[in-house]
Amino acid sequence: MKSKLLIALLLILASSAVIAGKAEDQQIKSRQSAYGFAGWNLGKIKDQVVDHPDTYNKDQVIAAANAIAAVANSGLGALFGPGTDEGTGWAKTRLKPEFFQQPEEAKKLATDFNREANELAKVAAGGDAGAIKTQFAKLADTCKACHKSFKIKE
Amino acid sequence: MKSKLLIALLLILASSAVIAGKAEDQQIKSRQSAYGFAGWNLGKIKDQVVDHPDTYNKDQVIAAANAIAAVANSGLGALFGPGTDEGTGWAKTRLKPEFFQQPEEAKKLATDFNREANELAKVAAGGDAGAIKTQFAKLADTCKACHKSFKIKE
Repeated sequence: MKSKLLIALLLILASSAVIAGKAEDQQIKSRQSAYGFAGWNLGKIKDQVVDHPDTYNKDQVIAAANAIAAVANSGLGALFGPGTDEGTGWAKTRLKPEFFQQPEEAKKLATDFNREANELAKVAAGGDAGAIKTQFAKLADTCKACHKSFKIKE
Repeated sequence: MKSKLLIALLLILASSAVIAGKAEDQQIKSRQSAYGFAGWNLGKIKDQVVDHPDTYNKDQVIAAANAIAAVANSGLGALFGPGTDEGTGWAKTRLKPEFFQQPEEAKKLATDFNREANELAKVAAGGDAGAIKTQFAKLADTCKACHKSFKIKE
């Protein structure tokens, strides 16, 4: 009887681990989607205000900046649960374990990204391409800072 | 000389195909990210207004609805270029070739999604959980309609 109970307990533990793994993988997949969507919109703004300013389209840049702000304001913290420095969403996560070892730094970098993304949405609405370019650079710096600290290089 | 010219031409054609393939794969990856991000936010709203209404949090539902509207308003059409019913972004695309054979239907379904997503953002701002639930169902219907016509089942 004891061994049967032990097997049953082990099975429960094993299935819990699978469920936990799936929840973590879903968080990883959602955050890869969120940053992938933000990246596409960052690329559009870079194209129109940095690389080819002759193609600047106010409405398109507003939509892109609003999309990035919506990502920043969507509560991304919920997608960085414990253990999500390991696992596979769309692809294997590139989050460094340091993210969980330096929570104050992670919070600061997330706050920086949020602030500059919301500022970009405001500046984009104003329609001054030069001001958008300046603010875009500030936002891009917050991306790079976080990648440097917490994202594994490809 | 003629054969050298032919080889050079073939090399150019081959590398163009690779570049074209990469551009298509990037579109597929960006749209998988966009819908993945929208799906995460749809899941949060479903959780708070359909499955566990006792957990309804007005600000979180507003942020989620704004995120979905930002996806809908981001110009997704640019991610459905010719030939993108084949290729691999984060994963192999599940877009049916019918999408390109029925452009009027595709446009109608995209317009429906856009309209209901923007309406959900408006209703979410009002803070009436019942009204949000009704509008959420309308939006979900537009997702299902498009999947039925144009998305390959897993």
